[in-house]
Amino acid sequence: MIKPRAILLLHCPDRQGIITDVTGFITHNHGNIVDLDQHVDRIDERLFMRIEWDLDGFSIPREHINEAVDQQLGIRYDMHSRVYFSDEKPRMAIFVSKMSHCLYDLLARYRAGEWEVEIPCIVSNHEDLRYVAEQFGIPYHVWSISPDKSNRAEVENAEMELLRSNRVNFVVLARYMQLISDEMISCYPHNIINIHHSFLPAFKGARPYHQAFDRGVKIIGATSHYVTRDLDAGPIIEQDVVRISHKDTPDSLVRKGRDLEKIVLSRAVTKHIERKILTYKNRTIVFG
Amino acid sequence: MIKPRAILLLHCPDRQGIITDVTGFITHNHGNIVDLDQHVDRIDERLFMRIEWDLDGFSIPREHINEAVDQQLGIRYDMHSRVYFSDEKPRMAIFVSKMSHCLYDLLARYRAGEWEVEIPCIVSNHEDLRYVAEQFGIPYHVWSISPDKSNRAEVENAEMELLRSNRVNFVVLARYMQLISDEMISCYPHNIINIHHSFLPAFKGARPYHQAFDRGVKIIGATSHYVTRDLDAGPIIEQDVVRISHKDTPDSLVRKGRDLEKIVLSRAVTKHIERKILTYKNRTIVFG
Amino acid sequence: MIKPRAILLLHCPDRQGIITDVTGFITHNHGNIVDLDQHVDRIDERLFMRIEWDLDGFSIPREHINEAVDQQLGIRYDMHSRVYFSDEKPRMAIFVSKMSHCLYDLLARYRAGEWEVEIPCIVSNHEDLRYVAEQFGIPYHVWSISPDKSNRAEVENAEMELLRSNRVNFVVLARYMQLISDEMISCYPHNIINIHHSFLPAFKGARPYHQAFDRGVKIIGATSHYVTRDLDAGPIIEQDVVRISHKDTPDSLVRKGRDLEKIVLSRAVTKHIERKILTYKNRTIVFG
Amino acid sequence: MIKPRAILLLHCPDRQGIITDVTGFITHNHGNIVDLDQHVDRIDERLFMRIEWDLDGFSIPREHINEAVDQQLGIRYDMHSRVYFSDEKPRMAIFVSKMSHCLYDLLARYRAGEWEVEIPCIVSNHEDLRYVAEQFGIPYHVWSISPDKSNRAEVENAEMELLRSNRVNFVVLARYMQLISDEMISCYPHNIINIHHSFLPAFKGARPYHQAFDRGVKIIGATSHYVTRDLDAGPIIEQDVVRISHKDTPDSLVRKGRDLEKIVLSRAVTKHIERKILTYKNRTIVFG
Repeated sequence: MIKPRAILLLHCPDRQGIITDVTGFITHNHGNIVDLDQHVDRIDERLFMRIEWDLDGFSIPREHINEAVDQQLGIRYDMHSRVYFSDEKPRMAIFVSKMSHCLYDLLARYRAGEWEVEIPCIVSNHEDLRYVAEQFGIPYHVWSISPDKSNRAEVENAEMELLRSNRVNFVVLARYMQLISDEMISCYPHNIINIHHSFLPAFKGARPYHQAFDRGVKIIGATSHYVTRDLDAGPIIEQDVVRISHKDTPDSLVRKGRDLEKIVLSRAVTKHIERKILTYKNRTIVFG
Repeated sequence: MIKPRAILLLHCPDRQGIITDVTGFITHNHGNIVDLDQHVDRIDERLFMRIEWDLDGFSIPREHINEAVDQQLGIRYDMHSRVYFSDEKPRMAIFVSKMSHCLYDLLARYRAGEWEVEIPCIVSNHEDLRYVAEQFGIPYHVWSISPDKSNRAEVENAEMELLRSNRVNFVVLARYMQLISDEMISCYPHNIINIHHSFLPAFKGARPYHQAFDRGVKIIGATSHYVTRDLDAGPIIEQDVVRISHKDTPDSLVRKGRDLEKIVLSRAVTKHIERKILTYKNRTIVFG
Repeated sequence: MIKPRAILLLHCPDRQGIITDVTGFITHNHGNIVDLDQHVDRIDERLFMRIEWDLDGFSIPREHINEAVDQQLGIRYDMHSRVYFSDEKPRMAIFVSKMSHCLYDLLARYRAGEWEVEIPCIVSNHEDLRYVAEQFGIPYHVWSISPDKSNRAEVENAEMELLRSNRVNFVVLARYMQLISDEMISCYPHNIINIHHSFLPAFKGARPYHQAFDRGVKIIGATSHYVTRDLDAGPIIEQDVVRISHKDTPDSLVRKGRDLEKIVLSRAVTKHIERKILTYKNRTIVFG
Repeated sequence: MIKPRAILLLHCPDRQGIITDVTGFITHNHGNIVDLDQHVDRIDERLFMRIEWDLDGFSIPREHINEAVDQQLGIRYDMHSRVYFSDEKPRMAIFVSKMSHCLYDLLARYRAGEWEVEIPCIVSNHEDLRYVAEQFGIPYHVWSISPDKSNRAEVENAEMELLRSNRVNFVVLARYMQLISDEMISCYPHNIINIHHSFLPAFKGARPYHQAFDRGVKIIGATSHYVTRDLDAGPIIEQDVVRISHKDTPDSLVRKGRDLEKIVLSRAVTKHIERKILTYKNRTIVFG
């Protein structure tokens, strides 16, 4: 049984003494630091930090840690910070359309216990993948926006209500082929993870593998990123690529791309669950 | 001493019997096929082929092979074809500006005898790299277009005259930071190789590493391609990538990119020298 | 509905005229060649070839094609050849132990219709993964060899009987942690595919991730290969790697390796199902 | 003009408060930390750290910093530490045999000013590459051990004397095909960098590309490592790989491998020059 830990994620303008003060705050309160990672952006003169410590013996009760960080460090250093606890599993909703490869990959990891996460619900705009949800015993909800879009508001409200009632912390779009509502984006800032089937910023938008084929590229990619209001333009979390050749067709690119997509999406979800991602100026800091 | 070989590069609409007829043409004339590579594009229903055979004992004299191919195969199959000979070394001009890494990489391979090529001249718009040319004993020619561009035509004529007088077969732009004239592009169709320091089509144009940094990508790339009239849009020959992280700055991307650029450019030059590239519809077929 | 095709895989000593004769055999019998790939090993002077053609209109009945190939080509060229038909789905058995990631990856592809294959049974030496088999509705058979190994022959016979009664064509060891019997290897020559969790030939045998950690490598790999009597020494089908760093522990290598293993295994299975692999002198020729 | 900086590399048993104390030591003495990287090995419970700060305004004179670190931190924490200064360029000797690709790559970077390093001499056991040294104006020294090895001691002494008289700090073996003397290894502990043309620990020793071809691997690699008395078994600094296929021959592996070798070697040299490498238990910690 692993003992509960606190995880502090923060960023602030870089000034002398911050690291000394942050680590001092924890050690003076009898916290045993088990992991520390930090990065200084020399262009923006900004410090990014992730620090993890055992709660056992820590002299500040867990419900007061956030407040203590603010008072003893946050104000002085103009800090953006957030404290997480390793024994509070984040709750993740999955949105899918018709392709099963990412969904299977996410659920297989979940079922195998790879992740400290709960998956209370799967949402779709199609019935196609209900059987996968049923294989894993997870509720599957379908709402379709009608061709005239007259029920858009209704569908978006129902989805938001589902996320709220399931206390969902973050959303994973596992090849979900429909736009996310502005409201959902606002409610889940940098908490909606999408997989785009190209090496962004190349081939934004629709049918990226066909675009890649037409351009004659020799490598294709996949990109996981946080969703913002700009389509396919949010902070990139992870990318990977695979070499192709003149022998490939748009169909074979789709096949090769599937393996990329599921791995790149799952790597991003892993980092998000482990609270190892900070965002700043539309870029991510992803700790190792 | 390797015996001279003929290399036939061709493409044509795919029809039954072509491969049988092409290989038959060579074997019936007592040519020993030493390499054959072919690719059928099922979307365009088009065959691409490279076939190499020993000239020793071949019953058609080398100066009549092109004509024989045309008469016995080309007309019947509506074929685009070209015959090369392994003992005719292509002559390559290098254009550079101020950065030495690609130039050194090309010249080191040339000097070490890696390539069956001649390099009669280096052209630049700056004096900076004359010392490198002198280290390798290759003539270095500098022409600068004046700020008001009044001497543009004169410079372009001088460059073309240099290429003609040196019987240059193809041109390598080794981080050459100036536009190539339309006339040169017309005279060297798919015979001018450029290296662009991004994973095209992402980050066309100027300062791609800065663009990549701003977008927050997790992988950067380099692309070698044939130059056409559309900037950074010609047929891609080779691409490669390297993983980066939030720790990278535009400066470190420039450093990491240099290694990519020189390797990706040299791979393209190798394939070009070996006559292993065909182009069709702005894409390349690069045989293995 | 795709029309049935024949696939001819062959290798033989390289001699003039073979390609002409093989393609001629098909076109003269009114077969329309839809794919041809060939490779000449210049060291062993040996030709390897895969040729695929539409059966529609082919003048030789499918049950006589093998015989015709032998008589008209095989004897003359001292050829090893085998004809397959695209509408005959190979039957694949999966062997597993306790780890689910490869099994889920194989079954998700199967269920999504990625492969032209049948999976009639899953075999294990443990009960652990029965729930996965049940999720996908595939019979799951467990046999354990007792600690004193007294029932080894009995278990091996039962396994062989299962494979026979299910008309299994090839076997996939999806992280199966037990030796395969010599009899099974003899009955399925180059038809048993294993995934080894290292970049072979480095780190053969047990606990390769721990070996990799101890050696301090900067990249880890996974290798899919055909099983022969020499442990981890059969012909390699596919390998891939992932970069690691000093931050990794044996545990994190195991996690990162899982993604490699499942992708590398599935790529090998794909090529095997597509009849794109030839073996010769303990190496594979894998057509694109 | 960049102001001089101090670089402290250290490792010690991990204990609470170390980071606070190390960073406190610098900030209390008015040093401005410009870079900090640290890693805790949780298996060995050991801290590794690299910290870089501006010397401008630092209250301890540079000649006393080492002593101050020892007294104020080293003894208390049982620390192995070493202080470097950014304006003290390390002096590097290159050893070569007959292949020029790594040598050209090193010298091109040196000449282009990529590295803060001095290269006072090149050593070889053959005359072959004297022309390269002459192109770059660097003294080239040749000593050959006679077939009967009677002059081995004499050669080794001459080489050591050359390194001493040139105040060489570290040695780069750029495809040097002769064993290094035990004395040199003792005098330059973890300061001799070799490039081995395989993905170690696979294919140690002679002719690794031929070994790779015989084994039928699908990926080849190169490994840079510190030289120890165990052949090809010292701490690995960097590795990289390239995909190959059944079309490759031992000769084409040699060609493809050359590009890997020079890049992998130069990456290791870069990290060494930047003082970003710590070694412990035959593994390296390479900071980003």
